[in-house]
Amino acid sequence: MSAPLDFYFDFSSPYGYLAAERIDDLAARYGRTVTWHPVLLGVIFQKTGAVPLTQAPLKGDYVARDFARSARFMGLPYRAPSRFPIPTQVAARAFYWLWDQDPDQARSFGRALYRALFVDDRDISAPDTVLDLAAAQGIDRAALADALAAPALKERLKQEVEAALGRGVCGSPYIVVDGEPFLGADRLPQLERWLAAGPGGF
Amino acid sequence: MSAPLDFYFDFSSPYGYLAAERIDDLAARYGRTVTWHPVLLGVIFQKTGAVPLTQAPLKGDYVARDFARSARFMGLPYRAPSRFPIPTQVAARAFYWLWDQDPDQARSFGRALYRALFVDDRDISAPDTVLDLAAAQGIDRAALADALAAPALKERLKQEVEAALGRGVCGSPYIVVDGEPFLGADRLPQLERWLAAGPGGF
Repeated sequence: MSAPLDFYFDFSSPYGYLAAERIDDLAARYGRTVTWHPVLLGVIFQKTGAVPLTQAPLKGDYVARDFARSARFMGLPYRAPSRFPIPTQVAARAFYWLWDQDPDQARSFGRALYRALFVDDRDISAPDTVLDLAAAQGIDRAALADALAAPALKERLKQEVEAALGRGVCGSPYIVVDGEPFLGADRLPQLERWLAAGPGGF
Repeated sequence: MSAPLDFYFDFSSPYGYLAAERIDDLAARYGRTVTWHPVLLGVIFQKTGAVPLTQAPLKGDYVARDFARSARFMGLPYRAPSRFPIPTQVAARAFYWLWDQDPDQARSFGRALYRALFVDDRDISAPDTVLDLAAAQGIDRAALADALAAPALKERLKQEVEAALGRGVCGSPYIVVDGEPFLGADRLPQLERWLAAGPGGF
């Protein structure tokens, strides 16, 4: 079994949502698994000098249209959130807490967080919403609430974001396959060809 | 016959080069033609606040790799130019001069300019190189040299860039189909589905 793919994303990233819906199945077709790494684009953009796409002059109108069209192109539901972008620290911390216990359940929880924001227009920056979504997946709500209140998870997320920056993560989604980085849900076709080509890619 | 597609690009844009190699054939499959509009990304980036991709911290290394990989993915030759990005005013002005006389020859000249830069590593910011490439296409070198020295073409390019900004052009390539904008060579598959879907797109 080859090494897992590394999937970096922010829970407030529409293109991250689109990739999250496809990446595990895509990897599985080539006998690969995926390690999910939620990060904070706000911290990353401080390094790259980028601004949130929707706030860029001229480009903001375009990307709002592109989010919805890209979802239709990929056959995925999408509704623009009322509030966007949003802080995603709580969602990311909850994800890592669950990941350490059960990666499969964490992936499922991650997709539930994304769908809550980008399909059902729920504000997943609210801790109660994160806890509700966890409880709906059969996760121990009280245990997660306790973990979110403790300092360890905050430190964990900080370290994950630092590690991502050290690896060159400059946007969301950013997926690394055997050292080869792919930025954007629109790079999934290239990523798939890379996997199909075998060691060294195409 | 439906209205032409509008193809905005900078001659220093690698993704513009990739799109230029495909857009006319793609449009023709749906009975459409393409109006080419070279613009100046430097002016556009002043409005959007963007920096050239290769100069963005963290992202610069990624995009250099992505240029080459995207070319391989599309089956097109690509070599990173020694000097990049470069000023493209002269190339764009020469293009418009020819476009007004013969759009088909102008498209062919446009592709020759792009291949000179991104395949043969020739510096197309040099007026002599632009004139040489024109002459190689059977274009009257002296007439073009005279036109490039006169103020009319400078004003023409300025007006084209202003018009592009007024239309929301925020990068290269930026292609408009019946009012629907597509940014990036990686959006050609979406653009093709849009054309295939008929009026109103998908």
